[in-house]
Amino acid sequence: MGSMKPLWRDVAAQRRHEINRKIPNEWLVPEHLLETHPAMALPHVSGILTPWELQVTEMRAVDILAGIRERRFTSVDVTRAFCKRAVIAHQATNCIAEVLFEEALAQAAELDEYLRIHGKTKGMLHGLPISVKEHIFVQGTTATSGLIAWANQMSPGDALIVQTFREQGAVFHVKTTNPQTLMAIETDSNLFGRTLNPHNPSLTCGGSTGGEGALIAMGGSPLGIGTDIGGSIRVPSAFCGLYGLKPSVGRLPHSGLCGLHDGMHNIIGAVGPMAKCREDLELFSSAALANRPWDHEPSLIEIPWKENIQIPAKLKFAVIRTDGIVHPHPPVINALEEVVATLEASGHTIVDWDTGLHEALINTINETYFLDGGKEYWETLEAGGEPPVQMLEWILKTHAKRSYSVEETWKVNSQLDLLRTMYAKQWNAAGIDAIICPAGPTVASVHGESRYWGYTSVWNALDYSAAVVPWRKVLPSDTLVNSAQQLSGSNAANDWFQERYGPQGADRYVNAPVGVQVVCRRLQEERLLQIVASVEASMSAAANGIDRGVVSELDCAQRALATEQSSHKDGSLYKITTLEDKVAAIAA
Amino acid sequence: MGSMKPLWRDVAAQRRHEINRKIPNEWLVPEHLLETHPAMALPHVSGILTPWELQVTEMRAVDILAGIRERRFTSVDVTRAFCKRAVIAHQATNCIAEVLFEEALAQAAELDEYLRIHGKTKGMLHGLPISVKEHIFVQGTTATSGLIAWANQMSPGDALIVQTFREQGAVFHVKTTNPQTLMAIETDSNLFGRTLNPHNPSLTCGGSTGGEGALIAMGGSPLGIGTDIGGSIRVPSAFCGLYGLKPSVGRLPHSGLCGLHDGMHNIIGAVGPMAKCREDLELFSSAALANRPWDHEPSLIEIPWKENIQIPAKLKFAVIRTDGIVHPHPPVINALEEVVATLEASGHTIVDWDTGLHEALINTINETYFLDGGKEYWETLEAGGEPPVQMLEWILKTHAKRSYSVEETWKVNSQLDLLRTMYAKQWNAAGIDAIICPAGPTVASVHGESRYWGYTSVWNALDYSAAVVPWRKVLPSDTLVNSAQQLSGSNAANDWFQERYGPQGADRYVNAPVGVQVVCRRLQEERLLQIVASVEASMSAAANGIDRGVVSELDCAQRALATEQSSHKDGSLYKITTLEDKVAAIAA
Repeated sequence: MGSMKPLWRDVAAQRRHEINRKIPNEWLVPEHLLETHPAMALPHVSGILTPWELQVTEMRAVDILAGIRERRFTSVDVTRAFCKRAVIAHQATNCIAEVLFEEALAQAAELDEYLRIHGKTKGMLHGLPISVKEHIFVQGTTATSGLIAWANQMSPGDALIVQTFREQGAVFHVKTTNPQTLMAIETDSNLFGRTLNPHNPSLTCGGSTGGEGALIAMGGSPLGIGTDIGGSIRVPSAFCGLYGLKPSVGRLPHSGLCGLHDGMHNIIGAVGPMAKCREDLELFSSAALANRPWDHEPSLIEIPWKENIQIPAKLKFAVIRTDGIVHPHPPVINALEEVVATLEASGHTIVDWDTGLHEALINTINETYFLDGGKEYWETLEAGGEPPVQMLEWILKTHAKRSYSVEETWKVNSQLDLLRTMYAKQWNAAGIDAIICPAGPTVASVHGESRYWGYTSVWNALDYSAAVVPWRKVLPSDTLVNSAQQLSGSNAANDWFQERYGPQGADRYVNAPVGVQVVCRRLQEERLLQIVASVEASMSAAANGIDRGVVSELDCAQRALATEQSSHKDGSLYKITTLEDKVAAIAA
Repeated sequence: MGSMKPLWRDVAAQRRHEINRKIPNEWLVPEHLLETHPAMALPHVSGILTPWELQVTEMRAVDILAGIRERRFTSVDVTRAFCKRAVIAHQATNCIAEVLFEEALAQAAELDEYLRIHGKTKGMLHGLPISVKEHIFVQGTTATSGLIAWANQMSPGDALIVQTFREQGAVFHVKTTNPQTLMAIETDSNLFGRTLNPHNPSLTCGGSTGGEGALIAMGGSPLGIGTDIGGSIRVPSAFCGLYGLKPSVGRLPHSGLCGLHDGMHNIIGAVGPMAKCREDLELFSSAALANRPWDHEPSLIEIPWKENIQIPAKLKFAVIRTDGIVHPHPPVINALEEVVATLEASGHTIVDWDTGLHEALINTINETYFLDGGKEYWETLEAGGEPPVQMLEWILKTHAKRSYSVEETWKVNSQLDLLRTMYAKQWNAAGIDAIICPAGPTVASVHGESRYWGYTSVWNALDYSAAVVPWRKVLPSDTLVNSAQQLSGSNAANDWFQERYGPQGADRYVNAPVGVQVVCRRLQEERLLQIVASVEASMSAAANGIDRGVVSELDCAQRALATEQSSHKDGSLYKITTLEDKVAAIAA
């Protein structure tokens, strides 16, 4: 009786067939190039993109918008360029969950026509291609959270952020992969498979907004819509060398997501941007608030985007070198010290920060993730007839141990309230402007090794605004000996992590980007981005005029050629380029 | 083994002894006056207050502050006057939970000295006596939530609102009664006993901020700090003829309250003011935000108080005449129609409002109150060895029927989110500025009959900002025949309420004040108070130049004399005075 449920492998194969079916053959990179070139070099060596297309796909979103607005180029040409490059990114990293090229090009043509007829743009994002994490509803697309059970679940409409951006003239050209159930900082699922880091395929792109990380890093999108409840925007941003912003809850439109634990309010995620520069984070945030979203999504707070926030010329930063639970690896520590040195050189004040509250905050937020003991997760996996992928299985078995009673959930809330109040006291007493800290203990992890998210989730626990800023890549000099931080510590998690980075650590993580995290208090997004601008100014000053923007510089044609010409140490590792050596020399 | 726990009657007797012990004998009204005069007349007939003291205790808080600031009078004199009048209010209504006269007079003396020495005030509330609902922490006082088990629980410090007001120069002279467990809109507990309505002792003062209602109505305080999670500021304001404001959650300082269900976030209450005029609601709100409370209480939203909000001269109001669940009694309907008529006469637009979502909203918020099936309530009563009072027993037995699983609480949250979104759609489509509606189906209930709070709790469910504005008192003409609304309806709750108001209803509720509720969307407190000002302007215009401020006018000496000279219909009912007749004649 009843119809036979398809096996999960068939469902997954069908979905991947759907993705591939919508990709034009002429945009596919030949196999031999895929096998012989690193991912980041492919857009330049494949010959699929014209020089102009290569150039425009490496521009900032704000500059692309100006180009369209000033009619120096059309949305159709821009969109086509990003579609082409997205295909290359997908071939190299498996980052696309849904192909929307046809709709995007039609939408772009309409917008070009609109501008031609009306002589003005439709809105702040007129003609700009934007990519969307796949669990976010987009009319006419599926939203699955990487679950076989939900493989054919159609979006009931546009999420409010998508609707807002559409009204502001955005074009949506792809949806991107996220992990099975979303609850992991690596991007792997039975439905979509694993997404790779374009800087080094042995490493994860991060998660849960991992597809965006790989796509944007390869120039397949100028701006992506992500979500973050423990690091899901910031981890892939850090792992892929991008900028990412996690706003506080209630600031940016958040309604219209598919996910498990609907109605769980003990901890709430946030929608935010991933991009190649700070200016594009700001563009995203101000556009998101342009249409009074609080009139439509009642949980949003009516705080319009504040332009021209003034911050002091000289700031006071607290620096977190370790949270005392899992000590960061040498590249993370060294990069942080370099950035701190640039801040000090610019006259900012740096103070140490006591992370005594972090363990309790991290334990408490970990409790909130699985208050039902993981029941709904297991049930939904079972409904799809699929096993958990390795990362999720580890998470559920280590973190989803028991179900809470309603009274116990109140105790968890009280504990979090208390910790937030204590943290506020500490911040008030210190009188700091921001915290600067790692985005995680590691650069992009080797697949399956992303087992700690306390450096990002602590700010979700506090509901603070936090941004990731890229700095450089892993250097051969990032050895244990050179690390400023003694990797002492005695807990099992720390020991496990330290074992991952032996004497050859720099080789294991070669080419992985490394950035820093900048943190302000709750609902301080404008202030945070102003402080990030100040950090960038210090970085630039220290870099002696060299543009140290990791993505724009590394993705340029010279970079691709330099990489191509360099000898590979082995199949998966690429030689460090001269740019990083220069940056490192300056920062040393 | 172990010490004998005292019986609850002994604990209560001890607490009442403590209250009485701190009241100077010379401020007590003689027994024969208490027996022969209505409560509202006592301050004037007792001879305890000087003419200046009577006058100052009937002034607006903003005017008292100006007087102190301009050194026309001292804080000590003002404070003493309110202490005296608070004693009279307590004798008549049983509204005081803790007497702080000594501390208040010492604090007032310090403030007078401060002003003398520095030539400036300490802050926005310099020298003003303020009363505090008893479950709000005030250093050196108990906070019991009306529970025997917590009868000796000392405040661990000042609540943030108390601390803020103290820093702004406020003086705290009394704490006021609230009901057993707080979860009732009548004020009765084994610990404090029942608090009466000063306008008519057969009626309740409302709750849960009931002591404030009785105290402020009698002139024993110019301004009170209350809390509201379902109507607990607005119900006693309406029942006692006061102004009350329930802000949205996260707007005003809220940390430092004692209560059950700590950490329950499915629905959250709000701290807000009760006062004799709109200007004092605004004073309270702006002073509450004067010291950046969001730096100390992380759940607060950084929205400083907005001065000079502009609203259109002609507004669009939606009017709710019944929520379709419990139809309001004739005085409530008639008063609402009168106010609506004044708004129309002033050129505002009035539209009808579909309350189709109210039942689901009210049912959902009722679920959130007792997600543990009332377990903690019963346990805490048991810990004190006390039975529930009649009102609480009815509430627990009818509303706290079962305990929810954690997954079920998420469904409740989702349901509330959905309803809020649907309500936002309705509001957007209607393009209204505010809703005007009853504050409840009845004027002040006969004791034990406050069984419906849907007209106030619906706005907690939506987290909208809502204010109560007094209009007049019950009139002999408030008969069923005269009521504009047919009291049709078929549910048991409605039938029960309609039975309470028979042909003699106006006599049963004689002298009870009646007001209206004005509602704006979430976090629109400034806009709401501006709209209230506009409503008042319409009321004044319709009243042809007569000040229709219920409290200031009704409490004046002439009023007291008029009441005294009037013949009583029976022991508990007082003749309607000429002022209301005038107002009614104008409004008719």
